[in-house]
Amino acid sequence: MSAGAIIVWELLGTATLILLGNGVVANHVLRKNNGHNAGFLFINLGWAFAVFTGASIAAPSGAHLNPAVTLGLAIAGDKGVSWADVPFYFIGQMAGAILGAVLCWATYKLQFDDHPEPENTLGIFSTGPQIQNTAWNLVTEIIGTFVLVAWILLSPVYATGDGGTPNFGNSALGYAGVSFVVLVIGASLGGPTGYAINPARDLGPRIAYAFLLPIRNKANANWGYSWIPVVGPLVGGAIAALVYLLVHNLT
Amino acid sequence: MSAGAIIVWELLGTATLILLGNGVVANHVLRKNNGHNAGFLFINLGWAFAVFTGASIAAPSGAHLNPAVTLGLAIAGDKGVSWADVPFYFIGQMAGAILGAVLCWATYKLQFDDHPEPENTLGIFSTGPQIQNTAWNLVTEIIGTFVLVAWILLSPVYATGDGGTPNFGNSALGYAGVSFVVLVIGASLGGPTGYAINPARDLGPRIAYAFLLPIRNKANANWGYSWIPVVGPLVGGAIAALVYLLVHNLT
Amino acid sequence: MSAGAIIVWELLGTATLILLGNGVVANHVLRKNNGHNAGFLFINLGWAFAVFTGASIAAPSGAHLNPAVTLGLAIAGDKGVSWADVPFYFIGQMAGAILGAVLCWATYKLQFDDHPEPENTLGIFSTGPQIQNTAWNLVTEIIGTFVLVAWILLSPVYATGDGGTPNFGNSALGYAGVSFVVLVIGASLGGPTGYAINPARDLGPRIAYAFLLPIRNKANANWGYSWIPVVGPLVGGAIAALVYLLVHNLT
Amino acid sequence: MSAGAIIVWELLGTATLILLGNGVVANHVLRKNNGHNAGFLFINLGWAFAVFTGASIAAPSGAHLNPAVTLGLAIAGDKGVSWADVPFYFIGQMAGAILGAVLCWATYKLQFDDHPEPENTLGIFSTGPQIQNTAWNLVTEIIGTFVLVAWILLSPVYATGDGGTPNFGNSALGYAGVSFVVLVIGASLGGPTGYAINPARDLGPRIAYAFLLPIRNKANANWGYSWIPVVGPLVGGAIAALVYLLVHNLT
Repeated sequence: MSAGAIIVWELLGTATLILLGNGVVANHVLRKNNGHNAGFLFINLGWAFAVFTGASIAAPSGAHLNPAVTLGLAIAGDKGVSWADVPFYFIGQMAGAILGAVLCWATYKLQFDDHPEPENTLGIFSTGPQIQNTAWNLVTEIIGTFVLVAWILLSPVYATGDGGTPNFGNSALGYAGVSFVVLVIGASLGGPTGYAINPARDLGPRIAYAFLLPIRNKANANWGYSWIPVVGPLVGGAIAALVYLLVHNLT
Repeated sequence: MSAGAIIVWELLGTATLILLGNGVVANHVLRKNNGHNAGFLFINLGWAFAVFTGASIAAPSGAHLNPAVTLGLAIAGDKGVSWADVPFYFIGQMAGAILGAVLCWATYKLQFDDHPEPENTLGIFSTGPQIQNTAWNLVTEIIGTFVLVAWILLSPVYATGDGGTPNFGNSALGYAGVSFVVLVIGASLGGPTGYAINPARDLGPRIAYAFLLPIRNKANANWGYSWIPVVGPLVGGAIAALVYLLVHNLT
Repeated sequence: MSAGAIIVWELLGTATLILLGNGVVANHVLRKNNGHNAGFLFINLGWAFAVFTGASIAAPSGAHLNPAVTLGLAIAGDKGVSWADVPFYFIGQMAGAILGAVLCWATYKLQFDDHPEPENTLGIFSTGPQIQNTAWNLVTEIIGTFVLVAWILLSPVYATGDGGTPNFGNSALGYAGVSFVVLVIGASLGGPTGYAINPARDLGPRIAYAFLLPIRNKANANWGYSWIPVVGPLVGGAIAALVYLLVHNLT
Repeated sequence: MSAGAIIVWELLGTATLILLGNGVVANHVLRKNNGHNAGFLFINLGWAFAVFTGASIAAPSGAHLNPAVTLGLAIAGDKGVSWADVPFYFIGQMAGAILGAVLCWATYKLQFDDHPEPENTLGIFSTGPQIQNTAWNLVTEIIGTFVLVAWILLSPVYATGDGGTPNFGNSALGYAGVSFVVLVIGASLGGPTGYAINPARDLGPRIAYAFLLPIRNKANANWGYSWIPVVGPLVGGAIAALVYLLVHNLT
């Protein structure tokens, strides 16, 4: 697949993922919404089926939508993702994440204007810890992303497609599967840090929040924390790939 | 497929969709119901699986159930929907939506009679904005419908069937897929305007409410807003078709 | 399939359905349960996946689990269910429903003993109306069952199996599909009467409650209402079969 | 399959199951979590999709993840599980359960440190009864596990795979199916005892809690109750296998 096609499909899929994922949090957080205060399970379900929707749109490029997934597939080596393609995946993912955050803002523009505490709107776009601690916040993000990427690499639900790119089989099953995995990672491992588990999902909207969105009286974008949901997921994805290689040598 | 068959299948499917979709809101809104005040996620799930049920009944006609979907498929041009069929789809969809609203009223007749605030019953049948603003309400409906129609056109879960009509493959997978997409559109983009994302879903029940249903002391049907959930979804569906054509030229 | 096999499989499937369906209501109603007051969506989900579990066990007999489904399939005439088999389906379904109610009681025996209001336990086993009215309660049950049986007859998700009995295809898809349909019928049409939509589901546990279960200080079994969740579903299933025959003549 | 491979795959799958299953309870129980007090349905969904994730990873070994499932398959005799393999399944399951509990603790380390009542943390890892009674607590665990193993043995969703080990077909369907069954067992039968329905799921984390985890001021591990969620599930799985053999002789 050409570099341009990788960028286009990853951009479309990631923009859809972030529009819908940021959107469910906006619905919950901002008052004068039908889903105001609808709760954490509501948010988990929103993100899970945001993955379903975005991934099934981005099928031609393998629907990574996540640099940690791309990295894990590249390290695994037998999934049709070459290191030369990795930069184009990252470009599409970051551009899509920024675009999705802007579309989320447009969807909820009136609610942002109405919001009495605009300095608390960062959490709609990017994650933060309930209790700040560099080492243990990293551990939580590493474990969450490890589960996601290990499942993608080890589960037979995921199949390596023809044409050099991985894909989730030729039906809705793989996309539903990955959305169930993201649902349970959110419910089960998302308590302490809000389960970024995806560098683009966190950094792209943070950039949009900081530099692009016309929200009055914004908070700072918490750049001091911002590297944890980038590095943690990349480390978790890499460990998952190493476990994959180890297990396939063992069995 | 004959014009009559298109009308029959779209009518059956859309009536089922609206009976179940309006029904879940009635269950939530009206007191003396087992589901009274069951919440927005409850409503999202009801509408999502209302789509599953109605769409899997209307399989022979391609299960559009939505003029914005029909328009997007017609613009796309390669999905087996001809412009000559479009009016028959619209007729079946509008007639079905009106019939579904009447059946919902019959299901909840005792609860409507018991309701202390009958003037607040419009929201069971049709959508309205949390904050009224013509331009931004349109933007929200355009973005929500764009996601729906873009997914239908771009996702490989959707397959073009034989016989000149599109369909969702020969199993439950496609119907489950579209219900997951409608679930997340509701949770993620349904906060500001109640996600009509379907002109028939909004206008049909509004007509039933205004002219057919024997609810005492009804509110007016808010005709001033009624064009937004018609025009917004049609624009969103058309933009999705143009993006589909653009992406397939690019890649 | 022999009469004995029909009885065995319908009994196993319906007992599983009622054990799990009555169980989720017991969990919600009785105090000193992990699921106490977990809400109506919780109950809807429990009944929906109770159908999934019971139906996928009873696959060899076609997994009716419901006299209204059996009646609809027999009237339809082309689904492999002969009128001679109908009594055996009914016997297995009623026996299974009674057995399932007894198993539910055993599961929650300590909670029944602890319950301060044993006279309010009928609702765990059988349905009742929020507002009593013979005609409109019947309408609600007819419409709910109509949707279920119309979906089974019209949706391509349902396939007629070999060997003279209908089945839901050879995979989990059909069973998941019917559970989604029961989920939305509960959420959307279950407000007024608790969606019996199945004579065995309501009458079997009512008989168990009245005559078999050693619950102290029981309420009467509300026999005055008991015929409505029997007659309504049978009428709804029959109407669905007539619409099926009409539609297949039209298109 | 070699003994080592059975151990590796069961260990990986069970560790994933317990990490995610214990994790959703930790998220609900411990304050300063995004999912604090998210409710019993939230916990049911977490455990259900924990099964999906762990089982689809452990596909090569048949994805038992549960000694009661292994026992039931061995008694059934025609599912490709030999008695000689049973000890290796048990070893992998117990080791995985202990590992999963440790990973759950690491994910929530900051929240455990912050928790004002560390003596109440046993319930995150292992089950306990709402009302203590040896006989009836056993009955509840036997019935819950019976449903799980009977479904695995009787449902056509489960297929016996090649190579001597059972598996859930070659797609996501079986794994989704078993997760739906675990969801409804939790919602419908999990009220009185917290649905262990798996000796490894309960005993492994109890050992980790008692001997490995550095939680200050721990409660005792309630060893007096600990045999019930081991014996009950084994008895339930064995009865399910006997019913399977009986039914297949009858029909």
